[in-house]
Amino acid sequence: MATFMDVHHGMKGITQEQLAAAHRADQAIEREEGVRFQKAWADPKSGTVYCLSEAPSADAVKRIHERAGHPVTEVHQVTYTV
Amino acid sequence: MATFMDVHHGMKGITQEQLAAAHRADQAIEREEGVRFQKAWADPKSGTVYCLSEAPSADAVKRIHERAGHPVTEVHQVTYTV
Repeated sequence: MATFMDVHHGMKGITQEQLAAAHRADQAIEREEGVRFQKAWADPKSGTVYCLSEAPSADAVKRIHERAGHPVTEVHQVTYTV
Repeated sequence: MATFMDVHHGMKGITQEQLAAAHRADQAIEREEGVRFQKAWADPKSGTVYCLSEAPSADAVKRIHERAGHPVTEVHQVTYTV
């Protein structure tokens, strides 16, 4: 398992409710790919959402986000944390 | 106080030690601007570092990072968290 930060763009105006609903949609199916979404942060002004997860691969993160209805292209494996 | 995610680029090959040293350099002076850096994640492959902080403004985050020797242009106020 590794840690990933993925970044969604184009989410201008996203609300707390929409963020929570998107997170729930991910969590509902994450086990099918061995992913565990931990945290998400949204900047509604620039339309950016950051998601932190533990997963077996970046592709697993992408597959869950895509199936949950919010595909992502930018997934970074964050090898180091402080 | 608000929550911010800032993003550093061009840090290819960054090590755990360098990430920790950068974080300590921020923390050594953060109080002077009322900032509290909470967490940082590094992807040495793409050279991307994400920093999460509590701060009075994006400019306060920028000033601390700049004085600590790693200026940043991309600072997002993350209004919502889940």
